[in-house]
Amino acid sequence: MPVGTTGAVRALTAEDLESCGAEIILGNTYHLYLRPGTEIVKRHGGLARFNSWNKPTLTDSGGYQVFSLKDIAKVTDEGVEFRSHLDGSPHFFTPERVMEIEHAIGADIIMAFDQCVPYPASEVTASHGVRRTYDWAKRCLKRHRELGEDQRALFGIVQGSVYENLRTQSAEEIVGLEFPGNAIGGLSVGESKDEMESMLAHTIQYLPADKPRYLMGVGYPEDILMAVSHGVDMFDCVLPTRNARTGCVFTSVGPVVYRNAEFADDSQPLDPNCDCRVCRRYSRAYIRHLYNQSEITGMVLSSYHSTYFYQQLMRDIRASIEAGRFAQFRREFLARYQQRG
Amino acid sequence: MPVGTTGAVRALTAEDLESCGAEIILGNTYHLYLRPGTEIVKRHGGLARFNSWNKPTLTDSGGYQVFSLKDIAKVTDEGVEFRSHLDGSPHFFTPERVMEIEHAIGADIIMAFDQCVPYPASEVTASHGVRRTYDWAKRCLKRHRELGEDQRALFGIVQGSVYENLRTQSAEEIVGLEFPGNAIGGLSVGESKDEMESMLAHTIQYLPADKPRYLMGVGYPEDILMAVSHGVDMFDCVLPTRNARTGCVFTSVGPVVYRNAEFADDSQPLDPNCDCRVCRRYSRAYIRHLYNQSEITGMVLSSYHSTYFYQQLMRDIRASIEAGRFAQFRREFLARYQQRG
Repeated sequence: MPVGTTGAVRALTAEDLESCGAEIILGNTYHLYLRPGTEIVKRHGGLARFNSWNKPTLTDSGGYQVFSLKDIAKVTDEGVEFRSHLDGSPHFFTPERVMEIEHAIGADIIMAFDQCVPYPASEVTASHGVRRTYDWAKRCLKRHRELGEDQRALFGIVQGSVYENLRTQSAEEIVGLEFPGNAIGGLSVGESKDEMESMLAHTIQYLPADKPRYLMGVGYPEDILMAVSHGVDMFDCVLPTRNARTGCVFTSVGPVVYRNAEFADDSQPLDPNCDCRVCRRYSRAYIRHLYNQSEITGMVLSSYHSTYFYQQLMRDIRASIEAGRFAQFRREFLARYQQRG
Repeated sequence: MPVGTTGAVRALTAEDLESCGAEIILGNTYHLYLRPGTEIVKRHGGLARFNSWNKPTLTDSGGYQVFSLKDIAKVTDEGVEFRSHLDGSPHFFTPERVMEIEHAIGADIIMAFDQCVPYPASEVTASHGVRRTYDWAKRCLKRHRELGEDQRALFGIVQGSVYENLRTQSAEEIVGLEFPGNAIGGLSVGESKDEMESMLAHTIQYLPADKPRYLMGVGYPEDILMAVSHGVDMFDCVLPTRNARTGCVFTSVGPVVYRNAEFADDSQPLDPNCDCRVCRRYSRAYIRHLYNQSEITGMVLSSYHSTYFYQQLMRDIRASIEAGRFAQFRREFLARYQQRG
């Protein structure tokens, strides 16, 4: 899922996302709540109408953003008190309030309000996060049902930091609430790749395979392939567009730091094996030049390619799974992807 | 002509420009010379290939930019010594050198290197500018012929500030050199609208009507209509995209400062009478929200609409001229355009 934090995937239009083949985009509850404000989004028919995407949407719960505001957020069992990063105004998110906001924003999939502890966290801290996440999940579910559970799907989130016993506990608790989909949160927050894989492999065995399994905030192409091999179905990540804006695109031959001087005179497309509209038309030399000039057009072109690349990767993964050759696809993809070193 | 100073019209792709109906775009010699550098553009097949526009292009001579660097440029009869705004490196532009650069950049229409005096300028200063502009025009023409005049068209530029006698002199001198097109420079540099119109009306009578007459750096829709009424054929201006990025678009009902709070909940398109792809899909409320979030996507959408609006204005002007009803079109356009006051 391309990430459109404030209602737009950065530098891309809805038409761009359609032509990349995106089927669902993500919005951020915290940001949309602050701006343009829940009521505006609701009055314009909900997120997918407001931003004219008109296709499925998902909102995270804002929990991750609120907890990122370390110094200005105060967490209690009741909820989180925080100040807006925009104007310092005080706000209070409870699980119930977040459900009300997410229902008003109106995405098709909404995420429960969870507590994501920072990395590293002691086992005690992590266990408090697990307890609170479970408590809040139950409160979310109750309010969600009152607001009309048929209108959208509420997904639960498993926490537990890097502690197997806590991951087991959290997964069993969340799965017991019978959400229509389950997410693994609290990974890709600073732990090593090995830790991430081992926690993912451990956690996912408790999540029912007949419901969507969503790994939040991941990741690099190699991480996605790894996670798919363990059974993950859904991903979101800002990497494709964020890195594109800062001079690096993802390609079939690995990440290309197109801002580098070596591409100043390179007439090849960003990705020599890509059929996206940017790669069919523009050279690395031109897009690098636009980067050097801080031209918005350069961000548009590079963001488009990387978003297309990720969508194509997911399409290829799905096709390989259906053909019973995912392991081979992964091997071949990585052999080419990692050749640049 | 949409202006793509450094090789891209800001926030727009070549596909965007095509779908707006643009037929020619402008590049800036000074900027392209400094970055990516003349040689890079030339090796990639010239400007229209380098930026993948693949349609007609025009380069200004860089004269206007160099003279804008007041404190760091030294003008003599030989040429202009200046320092790069990027790194302070010293450069020397002569009429001959500018022709070499413009030939290398490879636009279809290239502009002579002229001296645009600031506004206000004394008659003495302005007359020196006229003399130098004529002298440099002859030197440009000579070097242009040596470099191959069949490959691209060199246009002359008339100067003379706001002095009728100097405008007459400059026009007669420049027209005498028999360029395939003639431009009016040195207007829209700070003088009043009345001064601009009276200088334009005075100057254009000396320019042959069977060759393109180009008013440089103009302007607002009402200025374009005024200039067309006097016989101008070509325009370039950064207004549509620059204003769009700062929160104001041009519409059939006048400029709309879409960043204003009054549009926070407005579900109308930017321009209620526009059939561009942005107006068919997105609301003012959404685009205003993107502006408030400094989202690049907002700049893309607003820039697209305003560029489309200007292209549509020119198409409508051409159609009305062909139908012999330009005066009526102008009246009707302005009646609607100025209703917002």
